[in-house]
Amino acid sequence: MIIRRENVAARLSLHAPLAVAVLTSFIRDAVHTAGLAGVTVGLSGGVDSSLAAALAASALGPERVHGLLLPYRTSSADSIADALAVAEHLGIDHRTIDLSPMIDAYFTAENGEADADPGRRGNKIARERMTILFDQAKKLGCLVLGTSNKTEILLGYSTVFGDNASSLNPLGDLYKQQIWQLAEHLGLPESVVRKKPTADLWPGQTDEGELGFDYRSADEILYLMFDLGLHPHEVVERGYDEQVVDRIVRLEQTNRFKRRLMLIARLSGSAINLDQEIPRD
Amino acid sequence: MIIRRENVAARLSLHAPLAVAVLTSFIRDAVHTAGLAGVTVGLSGGVDSSLAAALAASALGPERVHGLLLPYRTSSADSIADALAVAEHLGIDHRTIDLSPMIDAYFTAENGEADADPGRRGNKIARERMTILFDQAKKLGCLVLGTSNKTEILLGYSTVFGDNASSLNPLGDLYKQQIWQLAEHLGLPESVVRKKPTADLWPGQTDEGELGFDYRSADEILYLMFDLGLHPHEVVERGYDEQVVDRIVRLEQTNRFKRRLMLIARLSGSAINLDQEIPRD
Repeated sequence: MIIRRENVAARLSLHAPLAVAVLTSFIRDAVHTAGLAGVTVGLSGGVDSSLAAALAASALGPERVHGLLLPYRTSSADSIADALAVAEHLGIDHRTIDLSPMIDAYFTAENGEADADPGRRGNKIARERMTILFDQAKKLGCLVLGTSNKTEILLGYSTVFGDNASSLNPLGDLYKQQIWQLAEHLGLPESVVRKKPTADLWPGQTDEGELGFDYRSADEILYLMFDLGLHPHEVVERGYDEQVVDRIVRLEQTNRFKRRLMLIARLSGSAINLDQEIPRD
Repeated sequence: MIIRRENVAARLSLHAPLAVAVLTSFIRDAVHTAGLAGVTVGLSGGVDSSLAAALAASALGPERVHGLLLPYRTSSADSIADALAVAEHLGIDHRTIDLSPMIDAYFTAENGEADADPGRRGNKIARERMTILFDQAKKLGCLVLGTSNKTEILLGYSTVFGDNASSLNPLGDLYKQQIWQLAEHLGLPESVVRKKPTADLWPGQTDEGELGFDYRSADEILYLMFDLGLHPHEVVERGYDEQVVDRIVRLEQTNRFKRRLMLIARLSGSAINLDQEIPRD
C-alpha cells in the first residue's frame, strides 16, 4: 500500500454531516433498545465530553441529556466555567456534585491526610466519577454516555474502570482531530474546541505534555498502523519521529489490557467471552 | 445429544487437583507477565473471595496476597469475622478499610441524608470497593484478583464496574457448586463453605432469596444451555421448572451487556474490539 505522509491528514478528515447522522442514530438506537429515558454524561469542559453531549442532545432532545459536573477541589475554575457554558449552549439539564468529600475521606483514612500521590488521586477521582454517573443513571432511568476517543483508547491514556467505563460510547471510533472537526461542525464554543486537552487531574496537566507528543502526530501514526496495517518501520520511513512511533507502539501494547473487561481463567469448553453465547429460539 | 437430569450433577463435578493446578498457574502467569508483585483481593467472608484468595496464596505464596476487608456500616459482623478467619487461615496480609465515610458523604450530598434506595447504595458500595482494590493494587504494585463465578457472570448477578471488574479472575469459569467443591478440597473453614451466599449489601439479603431459585438448579440449567447448547424447552423437558428456566434465560439476555466493556459506535473499518489489532513484527 502506498500512502505519502502529506496525504494522511486528508484521509482523517470526515464527511461531518454523515458522521453526525451515524453517531446520533447509534445513541438513539442504544437508548431505545435499552428501553431507557436518556443518558447521563460527565461534563469536564473539554472537547470530548462536550461533543458527546452535543451528539446526545441532537439524538434524543436536550431534555433527555443529564450533564454532571464532577469537580474535585483542585479542578480548574476555567474547566467548570467551560462545562457550564456547554450545558447552557446545548440547553441540557445539568448539576454539579463536588467530589472532594468522598475522595478526601478515602485518602485521609489511607494516609492520615487528604494529599496523596497525584497519579493515585487522579485514578480515584476518575473512578469516583464513573460510580456517580452510573448511580445518577440508575436514578434517572438512563444509560451512561462514554466520552473516550479512539486515540486515547488505543494509547490506553485513561483510567481503567474510570473514564474508560460507560454504557455506550459514540466517540470510540473517532481520532482526536476528528473530535475537533465534529465539534467545530456542530458549533461548540470556541473556547472549548481550541483549548489544550487536559484530564485536569492535577493543576497544569496537559495531555500532550504528559504523553510527550502531539495529538495530530499520534492520530496519523495510529491511523497508519491500526487502520492501514503498516508496520512501525514503514511509518518511520514516511518521516515520522522514530522515538514517538516507538513510544506509541509501547503504550498500545502495554495498555491493551484496558480494552478488555478482564482476563478470565479458562477451564471448560464454554469459558465466557471465548466461545458461543447461549443459543435460543 | 442425550443427557438425563440425574447425570448433570456428576458432569459438573471437577477433578479438583487438576482444576487447582490450572487456576494457580493462571494466576502465577498473569502476575509474572504483568511484571508485578502480587494481587489485592477483597475479602467478604463469602466462599468466592475466600477461594480466590486461597488459590492466589497457593500460586504466589501468602506474602504476595493482600486481602482487603471493605465493610460498610450495615455489613454483618459475621461476614467480617469470617473474612478475618480466612485471612488468618491462609496467613495472608490483611487490612480493613471502612467504606462508610465515602459512601455516606455521597448520599448525604445527594439526598440530604445518608440513607438511600438499597439497590443504589449496594451498587455504590460495590463500585467503591473496586476503586479501593485498584488503588491499593497501584500502591502495592499488584493486580486486582476478581472473585465472580460463572453462575453470577452468566446471570449478570453483579454490579457492572463493581464486583464484576478486576484485572484477572480465576473463578470466572467455575459454576457455584464447583466453587463449593474446590473450597472444600482446599480445606477452607466450614463456616465459610457452608454459609448461605449473600452479597451482604443490606441486612438479611441472600442471593437465592433475591434470585428466586437455588444455585444448584441454576448451575445445572446454565450448564445444559451454555455448555451443552440445549434449547430452553429441552431443559424443561428434562424436568426443570419452566418458570425458573424462563427467568434464567431472561436474566442472561437482559444482563449480557455486563460481559462487554461497553458499546462503541462504529464508523471506520478498524473500530476497536471489532477488527484487527495493530500488527507488528
